[in-house]
Amino acid sequence: MAGTAGTVAGGVTTPAGFRAAGISAGIKASGAPDLALIVSDTPARAAAVFTTNKAVAAPVVVSREHLARSGGVARAVIVNSGCANACTGDAGLAAARAMCDETAARVGCPAEQVLVASTGVIGVELPLGKIRTGLPLAFGALAADQGSMAARAIMTTDPFPKEAAATLTVAGRTAAIGGTAKGSGMIEPMLATMLAFVTTDAAVPQPLLDRALRAAVNDTFNAITVDGECSTNDCVMILANGASGAAVDEASCGDFTAALTGVCRELALGIVRGGEGATKLVTVTVTGAASSEDARRAAKAIANSPLVKTAIHGGDPNWGRLIAVAGRAHVAFELSHAAVTIGGTVLFRDGRPYDEAAPDAAAYLQGRDISVSVDLGAGRASSTVWTCDLSAEYVRINADYRT
Amino acid sequence: MAGTAGTVAGGVTTPAGFRAAGISAGIKASGAPDLALIVSDTPARAAAVFTTNKAVAAPVVVSREHLARSGGVARAVIVNSGCANACTGDAGLAAARAMCDETAARVGCPAEQVLVASTGVIGVELPLGKIRTGLPLAFGALAADQGSMAARAIMTTDPFPKEAAATLTVAGRTAAIGGTAKGSGMIEPMLATMLAFVTTDAAVPQPLLDRALRAAVNDTFNAITVDGECSTNDCVMILANGASGAAVDEASCGDFTAALTGVCRELALGIVRGGEGATKLVTVTVTGAASSEDARRAAKAIANSPLVKTAIHGGDPNWGRLIAVAGRAHVAFELSHAAVTIGGTVLFRDGRPYDEAAPDAAAYLQGRDISVSVDLGAGRASSTVWTCDLSAEYVRINADYRT
Repeated sequence: MAGTAGTVAGGVTTPAGFRAAGISAGIKASGAPDLALIVSDTPARAAAVFTTNKAVAAPVVVSREHLARSGGVARAVIVNSGCANACTGDAGLAAARAMCDETAARVGCPAEQVLVASTGVIGVELPLGKIRTGLPLAFGALAADQGSMAARAIMTTDPFPKEAAATLTVAGRTAAIGGTAKGSGMIEPMLATMLAFVTTDAAVPQPLLDRALRAAVNDTFNAITVDGECSTNDCVMILANGASGAAVDEASCGDFTAALTGVCRELALGIVRGGEGATKLVTVTVTGAASSEDARRAAKAIANSPLVKTAIHGGDPNWGRLIAVAGRAHVAFELSHAAVTIGGTVLFRDGRPYDEAAPDAAAYLQGRDISVSVDLGAGRASSTVWTCDLSAEYVRINADYRT
Repeated sequence: MAGTAGTVAGGVTTPAGFRAAGISAGIKASGAPDLALIVSDTPARAAAVFTTNKAVAAPVVVSREHLARSGGVARAVIVNSGCANACTGDAGLAAARAMCDETAARVGCPAEQVLVASTGVIGVELPLGKIRTGLPLAFGALAADQGSMAARAIMTTDPFPKEAAATLTVAGRTAAIGGTAKGSGMIEPMLATMLAFVTTDAAVPQPLLDRALRAAVNDTFNAITVDGECSTNDCVMILANGASGAAVDEASCGDFTAALTGVCRELALGIVRGGEGATKLVTVTVTGAASSEDARRAAKAIANSPLVKTAIHGGDPNWGRLIAVAGRAHVAFELSHAAVTIGGTVLFRDGRPYDEAAPDAAAYLQGRDISVSVDLGAGRASSTVWTCDLSAEYVRINADYRT
């Protein structure tokens, strides 16, 4: 049995038996940290989910191979920012393997117990020489209080680093879960690669770890959208080293999943708050759907609609746009039973506009934390998705020529 | 047998036996024309395609009913801008029917021979009194040289009116096809309703007219996107009155469809060029697809990608974004055989970047007519889609509060 989980300050080195580092290897021209290392003192159970993009980057290919070959065991994760190592052909694959090989040699483990990730510009050759020079620096800096530096080293133009942690009690022992993520915003804007790394000192059998990660990701990272793009490099990885002595089993897996979901949600919302050009966090809830698939599909369509996102940016309680997106989302939808609520204010219900409430909704939209909900009038299922507003700054960031 | 079709200057009154009018009924606060009328001197064969949005507007419901009840015969089309008459419940349906009834009374035909369309703000009651006052003015202005005024009266904040016409020879007789359309841009920005009205003085049996319209729309209006939104009011209507004496049959239907497609393409490209905030017309061609469905899907995904559209706006030959969108478009895709071309310049092929060509592509992107193509490396099917770039002006237009 597991007790109540609690969110705490912390990151990937909050769980026992994990050390991390973030250093400058010179990949970024700015000299900002660009090489992150996370090492477990002992072999950890590992699970990961990867991008569904078919133009998959070299580090994703290699990490998938390593997880399969090791049977889900990992000692270390090596991550660089400033270069995505995507669309780089056989040379890119060789470079990703070399990153793992050299990390494994220093950790003293088989290469397949090292996972690798990269983020940055697509189609540029990985500067492996710089990573080779940086690796000894990273191992020199490796410490149990350096999680925040790892969080900084995976950033591209994220406006702030993203970390989260939680504790939970399993059979009388306290375990911790910690994570870091990077989101949308790049030195040289390409696709907004999303990376997240989570550690836990709970002991979690690999099948349970995999199941817990997939459930947590589904309700968090898979429920956010900045601009509807899916990168070539996206991945979420978790390492569970058991150092707390807290062993998660079938009975306590639900509580572990809930705590993990809390950590992932905090990281995911950080990605949205730090979205390119974002000024508002927008929670989109769809209710009254015929199925949860319909609910998620409608919520994603609303969250990706440029007309909805610009209206929220401009503080316009433009409920007609929400209804119109729901109507085109290829889901069961009954206009005569549909409803739109912005904040607590009903603007449309049972086929009738409530425009007299528009000033209240407009005032609410001046805030930075916005909730909108649409009832499809077609059933009882619901789903929540998070996004940000669409600003002229988004266009400026992404229209700048890479120079 | 039909001869070669030729594009000519003109619009909905270019074909014989059609009169039109565009007047100010006071629906728009600006006093700009907002009521358009198209009348055929004799009963015309009629066909139409409507929005697939489930939050369907009242005029779409009524026009569908009328087409079914009349067996595809129409004498007139009445259109207002400045109010979409969408999400307006039973009162909105009654108002759309009243527009048809009063038009029919003046034409002297059954109500079901009148089609109706509206465009403007969603959820606002139609000012039927103003339309009733405006109708006698419209009938007074009705003339065979007033197609351009009808084109103006259906505009919202379209930057320019859109008209096109073509002639073709069928069995020794010359027939004309003329049309007008309105696109994306509104006085009070809501969804970008697309309306198009096409007339022809060819005699076309209803089944052939319907088939020709669907084929033409599929390759033109259904192949454009400004922002991926589908309005509550979209419709394309065609009226064929036979006044030229040129009778289209199975043998000449292909030529008629080709001429109709030419008119529809010109109108559709006008909508894209006049897209909200647009500065460039972008032709997206996908080749090497496993099926035409895959080709269209990938082309639409590229044309709707905010990262691709902002890169083109900024003149950045960012081929990685095109590859990444193709990779996430849920189509068959082989990275090692894929290619990206901007203008005539290959930037990525057979897994290899050609970044030395980037300056040429960047110079090309300074133009206003841009072609990009992506080969999926997975087959032989292809598709072309048209879109515009995404500018900060788009955000400004759509973020302004409706006042």
